[in-house]
Amino acid sequence: GVRCFGSPRVLVEPDPAAGFAVMKMRNPPVNSLSLEFLTEMLISLEKLESDKAFHAIIITSDCPGIFSAGLDLTEMCGRDPTHYAEYWKAVQELWLRFYLSHLVVISAINGVSPAGGCLLALSSDYRVLADNPKYAIGLNETLLGIVAPFWFKDTLVNTVGHRVAERALQLGLLFPPAEALRVGVVDQVVPEDQVQSAAQSVLAQWLAVPGHARQLTKTLMRKPTADRLLKERDADIQNFVRFISRDAIQKALRAYLEKLKQKKS
Amino acid sequence: GVRCFGSPRVLVEPDPAAGFAVMKMRNPPVNSLSLEFLTEMLISLEKLESDKAFHAIIITSDCPGIFSAGLDLTEMCGRDPTHYAEYWKAVQELWLRFYLSHLVVISAINGVSPAGGCLLALSSDYRVLADNPKYAIGLNETLLGIVAPFWFKDTLVNTVGHRVAERALQLGLLFPPAEALRVGVVDQVVPEDQVQSAAQSVLAQWLAVPGHARQLTKTLMRKPTADRLLKERDADIQNFVRFISRDAIQKALRAYLEKLKQKKS
Amino acid sequence: GVRCFGSPRVLVEPDPAAGFAVMKMRNPPVNSLSLEFLTEMLISLEKLESDKAFHAIIITSDCPGIFSAGLDLTEMCGRDPTHYAEYWKAVQELWLRFYLSHLVVISAINGVSPAGGCLLALSSDYRVLADNPKYAIGLNETLLGIVAPFWFKDTLVNTVGHRVAERALQLGLLFPPAEALRVGVVDQVVPEDQVQSAAQSVLAQWLAVPGHARQLTKTLMRKPTADRLLKERDADIQNFVRFISRDAIQKALRAYLEKLKQKKS
Repeated sequence: GVRCFGSPRVLVEPDPAAGFAVMKMRNPPVNSLSLEFLTEMLISLEKLESDKAFHAIIITSDCPGIFSAGLDLTEMCGRDPTHYAEYWKAVQELWLRFYLSHLVVISAINGVSPAGGCLLALSSDYRVLADNPKYAIGLNETLLGIVAPFWFKDTLVNTVGHRVAERALQLGLLFPPAEALRVGVVDQVVPEDQVQSAAQSVLAQWLAVPGHARQLTKTLMRKPTADRLLKERDADIQNFVRFISRDAIQKALRAYLEKLKQKKS
Repeated sequence: GVRCFGSPRVLVEPDPAAGFAVMKMRNPPVNSLSLEFLTEMLISLEKLESDKAFHAIIITSDCPGIFSAGLDLTEMCGRDPTHYAEYWKAVQELWLRFYLSHLVVISAINGVSPAGGCLLALSSDYRVLADNPKYAIGLNETLLGIVAPFWFKDTLVNTVGHRVAERALQLGLLFPPAEALRVGVVDQVVPEDQVQSAAQSVLAQWLAVPGHARQLTKTLMRKPTADRLLKERDADIQNFVRFISRDAIQKALRAYLEKLKQKKS
Repeated sequence: GVRCFGSPRVLVEPDPAAGFAVMKMRNPPVNSLSLEFLTEMLISLEKLESDKAFHAIIITSDCPGIFSAGLDLTEMCGRDPTHYAEYWKAVQELWLRFYLSHLVVISAINGVSPAGGCLLALSSDYRVLADNPKYAIGLNETLLGIVAPFWFKDTLVNTVGHRVAERALQLGLLFPPAEALRVGVVDQVVPEDQVQSAAQSVLAQWLAVPGHARQLTKTLMRKPTADRLLKERDADIQNFVRFISRDAIQKALRAYLEKLKQKKS
């Protein structure tokens, strides 16, 4: 039998014989990237990275219909600057660690993934999306009146090119599966019940490559982009704290959160 | 009724209620980008940018069958270096101002648009092209024996990627509508009588996005490219003046202008 | 009659009246890029570049079924550091000279072209590939446990974009013709017996462009990429020598060469 580990919010299903683990995000209802959840994701990733039995992970969601709703607005509203700074550092860390992981990271996207949820998927090496018209994916920050940071932008440009990114980011486009595939936001679209099996099939191809050469090649491709953030990490944090602390932004976030609450009840 | 303003060569049809204006280029016969015409374009743009009622413009041509023929060769032939420098600075300014405008800029391309005409279209946020096989678009400078400056090149690379740009620029390719759409020089091709309505439909999507976030995102995408010119603007002017002042180039331009004259008569 | 020149391993068939020469690689059995072969390629290129009758070359293979197998592993195995350094400098030189040649360079790819063979093709201005399912093309270094150097990577990114390059390089993908065309590794796929004639047809379009403007435009597009290597050419050589001198790498290369020998006998 397979021993599962992980944490309350991150269910890890290891298959050491096959060299990979499935990392299931379980932060209901929408896998918001709260500080606690981010921290658990990073700890789970570290555990797998430091265990030589594992060469790959498949990230997927345990919450029906949603991959991840992205950043947790409650971490960005009504708190103090120290908290905002701590939160943003964790968001940076999530991207840096997944984008540069020496493990092969495959996203099995089984739900909608806006904003930070899309970023997480873009940080993978390969993206399989379930063919459900509701499962749109994209960096839709502008629609909330905010701006994706430059490293979100860089990651999208690296994936779909400058022109598609320019239009998608300005309009806050969420791409339904066929469109996501056409522009390259995802690599493969499969029937909803085949997302896991498709991710595992793809994984076989990645695991067949000599690991050391593959990792160095991944670094060759991605380090320049990661370095851009590393060089101005503190400035990026200060920038976020300053932006999010503005009265107008706090007011807009409160209104948005209020609307979400009313929707639920 | 709609009050029109503008200048002799730039007809501005404002629709403040809808938040946009149509800017019609009327410098017959081919909307050559003469110094006077460039200046009027820039003044019209500034007026609209400084009026809070306007969030967008649609650029189109009032000259049948031609969007813009690009730079005005008579500004580059038989004049003194001071004039060449002044002219080139205005060309730079046109690009910088349109490429970075906080307004949404949609090109409704209702005619052929070679060289500088193509650059103007590439500076927009979105391009709708009339489906007429004569309406080719591209940076065809090499065919005239001249070289597109680096910021023309950067703008094309940002739009269609490095490889398509490399081939198109070397061969001076003018893309007919279907091809222009396929490689991404334009975003949409529509029947000729629907160019304006298509541009307005697209505009609705752009205007639905919170303006401030959209503008910051546009800057995020485009400022690095604009900064490259801003950093060496004077050198670029000197470079142009030196190149255009060469005997061989002046001779080639005179011969070309002579040929155009004979064609007309 | 046409006078042929060249060297034992590089057959040059000049057509000065038409302005081009065909450069046939003849280093059997697989056109491995040995030090001697590289040197002869460079000498042939220089000869053609310094003769004003020639504006273009078509590179193709005289070895059935193979364009070029890429770097010669026997140059990288069981030799001393001085030899490795000399070899790597010649490989750099091949890329620099072909990538920046003022001649139009068309690859008529009439066989499989992995690794360095693919790099040679990518250094051309245009690639025509014979439509034979065996004629795969790609940078498959990772599959041999090695890493493509950054300038191989830059050349691929310039051709197919960041995302396709990232996946192709990590997986060591060799693209069969239809796939190679789809992702842009090659520009055209034609029936096997039409590779030469297709290359010559394409050439006509390139030769119709004023040469000086075309060359400056090529430099504008490619110099920044070449400069990246030129700036750290020695470091890149040291890096190669250090990597290839490792016991583990030498052992792997010996094992691989042994396997190749056994295959043949």
